[in-house]
Amino acid sequence: MTYLHDIPLDEAIAAWRQVLDAAGALRRLPSETLPVAEANGRVTAAPVWARISVPHYHAAAMDGFAVVAHDTVGATLTRPLHLGLGQQARYVDTGDPLPPGTDAVIPIEEAQRLGEGEGAVIEILAATTPWKNVRVMGEDIVATELVVPANHRLRPQDLGAIAGSGHTHVQVYRRPRIAILPTGTELVAPGADLKPGDIIEFNCIVLGAMAEEWGARVNRLPILADDYQTIKRAVLAAIEDHDLVVINAGSSSGSEDFTAPIIAELGEVVVHGLAIRPGHPAVLGCARGRPVVGIPGYPVSAMVTFDLLVRPLLQQWMGQEAEARPRVEAVLTRKILSPIGQDEYVRVTLGRVGDRIVATPLSRGAGVIMSMVRADGMAYIPRFSEGLNAGDTVTVDLLRAPGVIDRTIVHLGSHDLTLDLLADQLRRERPDRALSSGNVGSLSGLLALRRGEAHLAGSHLLDEETGEYNLSYIRRYLPGMPVVVLGFVGRTQGLIVPRGNPRQLGGLADLTRPDVVFVNRQRGAGTRVLLDYHLQRMGIDAAAIQGYDRVEFTHMAVAAAVQSHAADCGLGILAAARALDLDFIPLFEEQYQLIIPRVYYESDLLAPLLDIVRSPSFRSAVSALGGYDVAHMGEILHEVGG
Amino acid sequence: MTYLHDIPLDEAIAAWRQVLDAAGALRRLPSETLPVAEANGRVTAAPVWARISVPHYHAAAMDGFAVVAHDTVGATLTRPLHLGLGQQARYVDTGDPLPPGTDAVIPIEEAQRLGEGEGAVIEILAATTPWKNVRVMGEDIVATELVVPANHRLRPQDLGAIAGSGHTHVQVYRRPRIAILPTGTELVAPGADLKPGDIIEFNCIVLGAMAEEWGARVNRLPILADDYQTIKRAVLAAIEDHDLVVINAGSSSGSEDFTAPIIAELGEVVVHGLAIRPGHPAVLGCARGRPVVGIPGYPVSAMVTFDLLVRPLLQQWMGQEAEARPRVEAVLTRKILSPIGQDEYVRVTLGRVGDRIVATPLSRGAGVIMSMVRADGMAYIPRFSEGLNAGDTVTVDLLRAPGVIDRTIVHLGSHDLTLDLLADQLRRERPDRALSSGNVGSLSGLLALRRGEAHLAGSHLLDEETGEYNLSYIRRYLPGMPVVVLGFVGRTQGLIVPRGNPRQLGGLADLTRPDVVFVNRQRGAGTRVLLDYHLQRMGIDAAAIQGYDRVEFTHMAVAAAVQSHAADCGLGILAAARALDLDFIPLFEEQYQLIIPRVYYESDLLAPLLDIVRSPSFRSAVSALGGYDVAHMGEILHEVGG
Repeated sequence: MTYLHDIPLDEAIAAWRQVLDAAGALRRLPSETLPVAEANGRVTAAPVWARISVPHYHAAAMDGFAVVAHDTVGATLTRPLHLGLGQQARYVDTGDPLPPGTDAVIPIEEAQRLGEGEGAVIEILAATTPWKNVRVMGEDIVATELVVPANHRLRPQDLGAIAGSGHTHVQVYRRPRIAILPTGTELVAPGADLKPGDIIEFNCIVLGAMAEEWGARVNRLPILADDYQTIKRAVLAAIEDHDLVVINAGSSSGSEDFTAPIIAELGEVVVHGLAIRPGHPAVLGCARGRPVVGIPGYPVSAMVTFDLLVRPLLQQWMGQEAEARPRVEAVLTRKILSPIGQDEYVRVTLGRVGDRIVATPLSRGAGVIMSMVRADGMAYIPRFSEGLNAGDTVTVDLLRAPGVIDRTIVHLGSHDLTLDLLADQLRRERPDRALSSGNVGSLSGLLALRRGEAHLAGSHLLDEETGEYNLSYIRRYLPGMPVVVLGFVGRTQGLIVPRGNPRQLGGLADLTRPDVVFVNRQRGAGTRVLLDYHLQRMGIDAAAIQGYDRVEFTHMAVAAAVQSHAADCGLGILAAARALDLDFIPLFEEQYQLIIPRVYYESDLLAPLLDIVRSPSFRSAVSALGGYDVAHMGEILHEVGG
Repeated sequence: MTYLHDIPLDEAIAAWRQVLDAAGALRRLPSETLPVAEANGRVTAAPVWARISVPHYHAAAMDGFAVVAHDTVGATLTRPLHLGLGQQARYVDTGDPLPPGTDAVIPIEEAQRLGEGEGAVIEILAATTPWKNVRVMGEDIVATELVVPANHRLRPQDLGAIAGSGHTHVQVYRRPRIAILPTGTELVAPGADLKPGDIIEFNCIVLGAMAEEWGARVNRLPILADDYQTIKRAVLAAIEDHDLVVINAGSSSGSEDFTAPIIAELGEVVVHGLAIRPGHPAVLGCARGRPVVGIPGYPVSAMVTFDLLVRPLLQQWMGQEAEARPRVEAVLTRKILSPIGQDEYVRVTLGRVGDRIVATPLSRGAGVIMSMVRADGMAYIPRFSEGLNAGDTVTVDLLRAPGVIDRTIVHLGSHDLTLDLLADQLRRERPDRALSSGNVGSLSGLLALRRGEAHLAGSHLLDEETGEYNLSYIRRYLPGMPVVVLGFVGRTQGLIVPRGNPRQLGGLADLTRPDVVFVNRQRGAGTRVLLDYHLQRMGIDAAAIQGYDRVEFTHMAVAAAVQSHAADCGLGILAAARALDLDFIPLFEEQYQLIIPRVYYESDLLAPLLDIVRSPSFRSAVSALGGYDVAHMGEILHEVGG
């Protein structure tokens, strides 16, 4: 067993680079010669000097008549001048070479042709000057001048200038060759039949796609079982004909984590363990003159470490500077605690709400690939910091185009499956809009509206006294803020139970049975409010319910807990039960509404979303899910405040 | 002959879209199904819903022992608890499924194994809670949830989530198919022997590379001569199996401009002529249900119109929103006049000088591809404006990564060939620096320093009274600014003449001969100062010199004018004559120095450049050019002011 010693990222990279440098593994890649048309995106390995001038002759810049400027002296409106066609004035098309001796072109619109045959002339009403309407030789490129330097990533216009200045080929670095070895007895390829313990291998797809975007040629090797000799042989073979070998995973210090010992046997482990989160169990090594890295198995750790360790190598090899991602400053909507001593990368969603950009942290689990899918950016929390408070400003490296933020509709509030449907339909009909949904529960959604962190909040908060939804909460938590309450869906809450209802549950009264384990929702969730309301009405002691303290944040997570037998039941909506093929005991009807500050309700940003909410096609798509009442969908139920 | 009616861009596009829409040519493309690993960068044609949960079972999140949390109640430091190995506690590796009934994992570090065989136990010193160190089923993705919506451009992490949620394939739009037809009797392929009038065809390389970057599959057809029937047949054939046909060029209204008439015969010309600069002679048409565009032949016009017309079509076909380029606000260093009624796109170089970004306009010629190579961005001057003054703020769409601007060393001043060499060597040794060189002449360079628009200025201004270089000019034009005068090169100025010196020129006295045509440099250029100084000394009347009023902005441009027989001679440096294989009559020795404000001289930004100036390798590379004296290269000659 090897041990991890987490060391700070910059120290780790410096130590590794020193070893790689000594081994000659930081040298620029060899070059290859490509036809110009095939070189877009590649990096020049040598400067390109112009072989010829462009244009390489004096060219007419207009359709017209080539003349000697001196011959036109004296021509005016009142004293037109005639020039003999074919002698003093010769017709040229744009791009034609000037006939020898001529030095200007009179545009066809400025000359009138008179006469025919030998005696034909053109009449002009103004003199011209030498080199007027002429592209002189070398106007664009002068032979011998620098067209592009070495270490320049070629763009379309560069290809044009290189071809135009007389080259058919260009010398570029050959692509870095990267081998990615997926290791793990538990791994199966996509499409395999799954049994518990099997993990679909997708890290190599992700890492390979990243490296290809950075210009590499990637060789994804077949999955290897956790066998020391097998993996060692594969690494040895890969070192032969690749510039970099990536082992994924086995990079930690468990009994089947062979990455570090194998690298140590074949060469040197420079670093084992980075003081970063996610991603700490990485291995930085060098064997047979090549870098060999162990990348952690959790997908987010894998992406983060691959980006931090591998991208700079590829850039080094092709003479490129590490390119910082575009950044924005954003206001954090929730507190983030972060351990001292660890550089942390927190995935966040972003949206422009009012005049500021707000960042909402996503799941920080290293295994949650969906957090990378949903993230708009990564907030960096340095190792000297214990974290950040809500309202703090944080610098976010963007994972999407900056413009996307301004077009993102931010929803924070209760989760309902129909929001996924809404997000998809919005994206499909209006590519210029995105819906970012943070599932924080109804009450937190209202509080987010108050703090100006969201454009709308889905909410189903029952007022226990009036039996109305949301209104009293809006009055209490959003005083003075003009808001529109929009009808969305009526839905049935009930107990989600396994197929066949094995515990034979009938209602909330059964929750206190000793053989029943419940799964709850978090405080502030409308479903939790509903549960507590009915428990109180029925005089049931929450403390007597097993599992009352285990909370999930979405209906689907509750249903998943039931499906996996982590709990016997949970309170949730019919659609969640249906989605996972579970049974459902209906208990209460409730209203899920959209709470929208008037300023956003009337904005261009939200208009397409409101159109979809009111469209027959969305209404029928929601109806088709089952268990939803769409009678009030899109209807203005209340206008409050203002 | 057809006529161009320039109409504003937005009106033109609206009219074109209307016709295309009616023809069904704006519909989304058909979809195709790809293995997930091959879909990076492609756009989803349908939403992807999770088929399975991730994880699809309860998984150990640590290496350790799976237990029933309830069994651990009561364990403390002082009252350790023993759990029977294999019964109450079972060893699991990270990722293993929890054995049925267990609900928590005690990490291996927190348990001590005691005893062997049947009686073995683990000793723990703390209780655990249900689901501690467990990745519960669906923690990452819950089956049926939305993974990515339709019209989403797939990124590496999306591929991971799609594969992880049970998919082997993904449905994406097929690539748009674009045919590009180069037309023009004057066109030759790269590598052909050139005669006057031949133009190397490189627009199709440029446009093709642009379209490929936007996701298209591009078919570059062979060059077609200007023959109506030939082109028509090729367009007809291309329409059959492409989504878009691009004809380049023949889009103007000359006698051999067949693009518009051919589109008119096959379908409809919606717009002929855009009120934009560069790029106005474009043709927007539709034939047989497909868009057909005529793109102008000048390379900058071609790039600009292709970007404005074709990119939005591709985005439309794949449900993508037009993505604005990153933008910066910059201060203009020179006045730009722009005609009312024309939207103008001006190429600029950018650099951060002090606390602001400065934009220096480049050549506005539609044919100058090097202006696209050199440009850091495009400034947009709307058609309602007559232009902008120096010092005005202008919005610039970036053509490079935003970070590059901060690493760009801005040189404005006199041109010398060794600056190209310096730019290349800098780029090669320090990929994190770029040298942007604006050839404005010595005096304008000093004035640019005064206005804070450049980091350094190359200058060779002779003080006619003292015979010294630059010093008196610095005192006059940069009062109070601490600057360092750095020795760079000594060089010989002389007359550049054709091989064999056919006019038998011997010195400046010959310039007034009636058979001699001179080519001059612009006012403020050091070479011009030198010329005027010696003309005055020798009592030669400038007005008597033919060509004195024709100015070029660089030594190479002067040499090119001589090479092309546009002039018989010009004053310039030996290196320029050598580069174009011309003869040279040496006349004067002069000092070309680098004038650097102290604040930049001491900056991190310039440090690598100064290192190179002082390196033996650069010194010998300059010596190898011939005609340069490098004795004072890198030496601090004067420290002025401050």
